[in-house]
Amino acid sequence: MEPAIKYRLIKTDKHTGARLGEIITPHGTFPTPIFMPVGTQATVKAMSPEELEDLGADIILSNTYHLWVRPGEDIVKEGGGLHQFMNWKKGILTDSGGFQVFSLAKLRDITEEGVHFKNELNGANMFLSPEKAIQIENDLGPDIMMSFDECPPYFESYDYVKHSVERTSRWAERGLKAHRNPETQGLFGIIQGAGFEDLRRQSAKDLVSMDFPGYSIGGLSVGESKEEMNRVLDFTTQLIPENKPRYLMGVGSPDALIDGVLRGVDMFDCVLPTRIARNGTCMTSHGRLVVKNAKYARDFTPIDDNCQCYTCRNYTRAYIRHLIKTDETFGLRLTSIHNVYFLVHLMKDVRQAIMDDNLLEFRQNFFEEYGYNKENSKNF
Amino acid sequence: MEPAIKYRLIKTDKHTGARLGEIITPHGTFPTPIFMPVGTQATVKAMSPEELEDLGADIILSNTYHLWVRPGEDIVKEGGGLHQFMNWKKGILTDSGGFQVFSLAKLRDITEEGVHFKNELNGANMFLSPEKAIQIENDLGPDIMMSFDECPPYFESYDYVKHSVERTSRWAERGLKAHRNPETQGLFGIIQGAGFEDLRRQSAKDLVSMDFPGYSIGGLSVGESKEEMNRVLDFTTQLIPENKPRYLMGVGSPDALIDGVLRGVDMFDCVLPTRIARNGTCMTSHGRLVVKNAKYARDFTPIDDNCQCYTCRNYTRAYIRHLIKTDETFGLRLTSIHNVYFLVHLMKDVRQAIMDDNLLEFRQNFFEEYGYNKENSKNF
Repeated sequence: MEPAIKYRLIKTDKHTGARLGEIITPHGTFPTPIFMPVGTQATVKAMSPEELEDLGADIILSNTYHLWVRPGEDIVKEGGGLHQFMNWKKGILTDSGGFQVFSLAKLRDITEEGVHFKNELNGANMFLSPEKAIQIENDLGPDIMMSFDECPPYFESYDYVKHSVERTSRWAERGLKAHRNPETQGLFGIIQGAGFEDLRRQSAKDLVSMDFPGYSIGGLSVGESKEEMNRVLDFTTQLIPENKPRYLMGVGSPDALIDGVLRGVDMFDCVLPTRIARNGTCMTSHGRLVVKNAKYARDFTPIDDNCQCYTCRNYTRAYIRHLIKTDETFGLRLTSIHNVYFLVHLMKDVRQAIMDDNLLEFRQNFFEEYGYNKENSKNF
Repeated sequence: MEPAIKYRLIKTDKHTGARLGEIITPHGTFPTPIFMPVGTQATVKAMSPEELEDLGADIILSNTYHLWVRPGEDIVKEGGGLHQFMNWKKGILTDSGGFQVFSLAKLRDITEEGVHFKNELNGANMFLSPEKAIQIENDLGPDIMMSFDECPPYFESYDYVKHSVERTSRWAERGLKAHRNPETQGLFGIIQGAGFEDLRRQSAKDLVSMDFPGYSIGGLSVGESKEEMNRVLDFTTQLIPENKPRYLMGVGSPDALIDGVLRGVDMFDCVLPTRIARNGTCMTSHGRLVVKNAKYARDFTPIDDNCQCYTCRNYTRAYIRHLIKTDETFGLRLTSIHNVYFLVHLMKDVRQAIMDDNLLEFRQNFFEEYGYNKENSKNF
């Protein structure tokens, strides 16, 4: 049987661990490293599928937990699966719902069998297990699925994380067995272990022995410092076979993307570009710009003079500020399009830098221009 | 001097007062009768200029009062005028702000000079006069401007309306004198007079003597019945010279559009299609459809099986319902696109019916299919 998802390594940067490659999926082949915009509820907030495709997005992430609750995976399945339901013809990756159960739900009870919890919307009792998560993901029909895992807090005790990692490995194996569509959907294993090198090593070893078509690195970008995250990445990416894609979950600030690529990460996702867009905050080639600020009221230049996105080609800061100040959704659409374009094209530049073996120089210039080298610089 | 706005009558329906024609503006020539979507704050809610153009909109309305308050007409002017500010290359009509002063503002004081009132957003004291309204509209730069008028309640006393109409005529004359750009912007006079035939007659006579390039019919669709509105239209459209366009303000329900056209109206505007779209209500060839209702949860057909809009070509009722239930703005975009398309294309069908001299038959079929002939039918 051909696996649904394949990875091809094209080239490694001469001076770092960065990899240029491509991932082949049932809905297209896309170049890596890549950033995936997040469409939690079967829509990337404020954007149409055509707008996503126009700005260069090849694959998006959608959330199993949210779609399970609303509209229900049975409705998505009846509607022809997620691609048809939301009119998106390129790649889709879903998480397993695990992260949401641990971050959103209240009164949860973790057992070997799975997790009992109360739905935060209506208080209903719900139960998510490896088998249930896989059944939902099979019904949703994304190209890439995630195993059901526990994402423990970063600063939990060694003993807690050790037991959690062992259970996550057992859950991964159960999920693999429950998976009904391995020929059309690729299931990734998720490496956990917080900041403990030997636990990350154990987690990776367990999962690699199950031969998943790809591996995610979970439990990072959950409150630890970026130095700490990079320290963990330094040894974790090494644990994943070279011929499998490596996906760092929930990371989307420009510096963390570049630093992840340097350490051999191939895939990223994050709500950051669309979330900050809704507050009127934009990422630009000169750094962060809060377009709703009063100083842009009479600024008739684009958000970013180096940007070729739909927003920057057609609208001024003054107009976008006006839309956001008057609560017009078109303003959020314009800032969302810009921010997602920014990250998608940052990754394009990063791929070129790997091709040219000058990613370290690229990083230096980008950090300087973005303002990361200033004192008290923001994360994005 | 060539007037900025010209009207050309192409054909009159053999059996009714309906007129097929065209209006020539500095931003294009468009066929009439026509429906104009409303973009209150320099954006038609939830829609891009490209989406508006794709669905066939030729001219939109924007609100002087709102743009005066935010961002300020000086900023729009500095940004190159409304067309450039909002990236809309076709026609724009602005109202005068009068209607908003009378409907939104509190503690207003009407004098011969103008209207003193408190801004409903921040309580600031403001003053709008014929000269100020025209200055704002000149700065905004639409193709068609409205005179500053008083829009009295429909059921005011004869004496009140008489004095109001006389003042509105004096205000119209002052506005005409204040107008700085008659060669690039056409200023319309607004006929008032509530339900009193002799006052409508007086108002029209006053304004026609000032030779405006077009005439609006104001003070209707403000709470009176549709029968009452049609009664007033029956005699009011007759008062306007045949070679000038006739614009019925604030009307957008399908029945009222058709009944207005039958009585010789050429232009309409209304927030209805976009406002009800935000509640998940759609206009369809089979009548009203509240897409967020539970019965559409598993309905994988389009909103309207006879519709060729972007929404109906690509999305199902089940998906749109899901988006609206989860507060996703893309859902409002999809229903807004559909509803505006519906009215723009209804007017296209109406124009064809005038061409074919069968508008009465068209009306009968449309009313039957839409459900207007049922007992307790809704307005839209």
